[in-house]
Amino acid sequence: MTDEFIRVTYRIECPDSVEAMAAKIASDQSTGTFTELPGETDAVRRRCAARVESVTPLPPAQTPGFPSDAPGPFNRGDAVIAYPLEAIGTDIAALMTVTVGGVYAARGLTGVRVMDFDLPQAWACHPGPQFGIAGSRRLMGVTEGPMIASIIKPSLGLTPEDTAQVVAELCEAGVDFIKDDEKMMNPGYAPLKARVDAIMPVIEAHAHKTGKRVMYAFGISSADPDQMMQAHDYVADRGGQAAVININSIGPGGMSFLRKRSRLCLHAHRNGWDILTRHPALGMEFRAYQKLWRLMGVDQFQINGIAAKYWEPDESFVRSFHDVMTPIFSEADRPLPVVCSGQWGGQAVETYQRTGQTLDLMYLGGGGIHGHPMGAAAGVRAIRQAWQAAAESETLADKGAHSPELRAALERWG
Amino acid sequence: MTDEFIRVTYRIECPDSVEAMAAKIASDQSTGTFTELPGETDAVRRRCAARVESVTPLPPAQTPGFPSDAPGPFNRGDAVIAYPLEAIGTDIAALMTVTVGGVYAARGLTGVRVMDFDLPQAWACHPGPQFGIAGSRRLMGVTEGPMIASIIKPSLGLTPEDTAQVVAELCEAGVDFIKDDEKMMNPGYAPLKARVDAIMPVIEAHAHKTGKRVMYAFGISSADPDQMMQAHDYVADRGGQAAVININSIGPGGMSFLRKRSRLCLHAHRNGWDILTRHPALGMEFRAYQKLWRLMGVDQFQINGIAAKYWEPDESFVRSFHDVMTPIFSEADRPLPVVCSGQWGGQAVETYQRTGQTLDLMYLGGGGIHGHPMGAAAGVRAIRQAWQAAAESETLADKGAHSPELRAALERWG
Repeated sequence: MTDEFIRVTYRIECPDSVEAMAAKIASDQSTGTFTELPGETDAVRRRCAARVESVTPLPPAQTPGFPSDAPGPFNRGDAVIAYPLEAIGTDIAALMTVTVGGVYAARGLTGVRVMDFDLPQAWACHPGPQFGIAGSRRLMGVTEGPMIASIIKPSLGLTPEDTAQVVAELCEAGVDFIKDDEKMMNPGYAPLKARVDAIMPVIEAHAHKTGKRVMYAFGISSADPDQMMQAHDYVADRGGQAAVININSIGPGGMSFLRKRSRLCLHAHRNGWDILTRHPALGMEFRAYQKLWRLMGVDQFQINGIAAKYWEPDESFVRSFHDVMTPIFSEADRPLPVVCSGQWGGQAVETYQRTGQTLDLMYLGGGGIHGHPMGAAAGVRAIRQAWQAAAESETLADKGAHSPELRAALERWG
Repeated sequence: MTDEFIRVTYRIECPDSVEAMAAKIASDQSTGTFTELPGETDAVRRRCAARVESVTPLPPAQTPGFPSDAPGPFNRGDAVIAYPLEAIGTDIAALMTVTVGGVYAARGLTGVRVMDFDLPQAWACHPGPQFGIAGSRRLMGVTEGPMIASIIKPSLGLTPEDTAQVVAELCEAGVDFIKDDEKMMNPGYAPLKARVDAIMPVIEAHAHKTGKRVMYAFGISSADPDQMMQAHDYVADRGGQAAVININSIGPGGMSFLRKRSRLCLHAHRNGWDILTRHPALGMEFRAYQKLWRLMGVDQFQINGIAAKYWEPDESFVRSFHDVMTPIFSEADRPLPVVCSGQWGGQAVETYQRTGQTLDLMYLGGGGIHGHPMGAAAGVRAIRQAWQAAAESETLADKGAHSPELRAALERWG
């Protein structure tokens, strides 16, 4: 029996005592029931009892997270609860059930948010990314600077032949990476196999002509792991290098199954995550969430960007970037951060400044490349120019003065 | 190309026009991006464009679901959006990504809740429950009346030998079904295989002695489907009949993988679901959620009960009961409703009256059986007496007058 613990930090909000609520959670998630029982001995408690290690008070909230008839204010605090590793082991389903699932059901809470998991060394048993940052660079042949990426537009509705035409234009335009929209999986009008058959020859022809192999990520997600593996194999057997994975839509089981068998670089889209994080008093902080998916094997992680088209505030994106760049057990468990959503280069300098001045990232332009007034190739050049400005501590305006593509982008979207 | 549609009902809340927000969601979830693009032709739109079919206004909210700087009130309405089946197909991961995941990310919402999925006949391709209500009755040998169930207590911390002792007591006490706590999977102090080895001989001995084979559901959940299948096979090969599955902790991939290969009756615990439903303006209604898990193969569905020990109000439980008892495509896709959490018999009459006077249910007592003042056998008898009262339109007090076990329960918890 080990003496190690898994520590989970919860942001608790309730009308009554936060300390008492933390103690109730620790009890409920180990041996508790609603009435006293024979058999709950000291030996039993030692094996599985969770205990509250600390409660850090926070200013109370005036408005409750969940609607409440209590008058308020609502007390808040960050509680660290230690669970014996012996009681949970290293299975992610066990961690989710014991430390997350049950907690969300506790009576008397007006808010609960899982802030972080502090996992002991035994959890280094998980596979983690197969490619990560270094492998992504190697596969794309991009030794330095950001990897510039785009997405098929329109995101849905194109036939495989139409899509291949867009791929040819984007290869010409000079991107390092192209992906299916996350909503593109296996629709009747553009089945995965037909997309692979239409797109891979374009990738190969471009590689043959220029020496540059553009990485294409095909949407292979399926709720059925067997079907997903068939799609995976079809892509990998024809020279494909990457796949877009809708991690929440397949769940931990789908991801674990895939990672063990995967030959592809796994580009994660976290759609669905928003409902877990958008209300600051509820759900789960990205810091906690992303650790589990990295351990399960995400190679590239979409995390929005500055001025995203979605709800997410810039500060949340900046925190996410730092989160994915922080090792859990080693540098190798870091995925490539994918900066995306409404990106066109205008956010490059601010992104660079606020994320630790790193160029270890993928920068993904959709409308910002396809919709550039001088065409897609100019869109890619504008983005590269913007990142050069960032790396050389130049302003976008100064860089634009002698870079017509960036200038045109600034005039269109600036 | 088919003309069928998947219809999704969203409860939308926003400071501006609900109609405009519904239209934005329909556009975002098909071809939309933040800037106009060449290539978005009428042909493209026909293949994949979602459209708003109706918006039913609701009274505005004074307090926003997500915190907002807007002054309020916040407009509300139920929008039905129709997605072409051609664009989604029949994959649950595609449904989740296209109709749920992306919607949760939309800017400008102060609330969004997926209320229902209306799925076309093509979705009847999913396996659904392997056993359901009729199969559960057959396996337990309970031809009529509710199936009376209990759970190992203390829920965690017992060794396999301690657990087997509790199983023997519960078999003696006359239950039809026993389950591991959902938090019990494969901990170091009581690994699954050791539990099976200790428990199954007790089940067999009781069956040999009495002719009654009590159904035991072992916690086999793992985020790794291969490990989960090994656990499944270990249970099934030794005569086990059921498994507790933490559906959210394994995700759709784990559930689909298991169902295709399963020989066990799958008893679903929905821990983690609460965060999706506890705020009425956010997340997902159980009606929508349970349809997907039923299609994936849940045989028995835990749905709390009247006066549950968790946060859930009674009305929510009653709706859930009706939801799981409503066929999606046929009667066979109905799981057995498992009424649980804080149950001791005192809720039997009210449960019967409010759930359509059916006895097609499992009624699960934990503390209500283990903690009965006259012992576990009396706890089971008290629960059976309470259900007899319900079925015979008697009051609990009248029934208790000539039923000492029920009377003792009423004195202890009534």
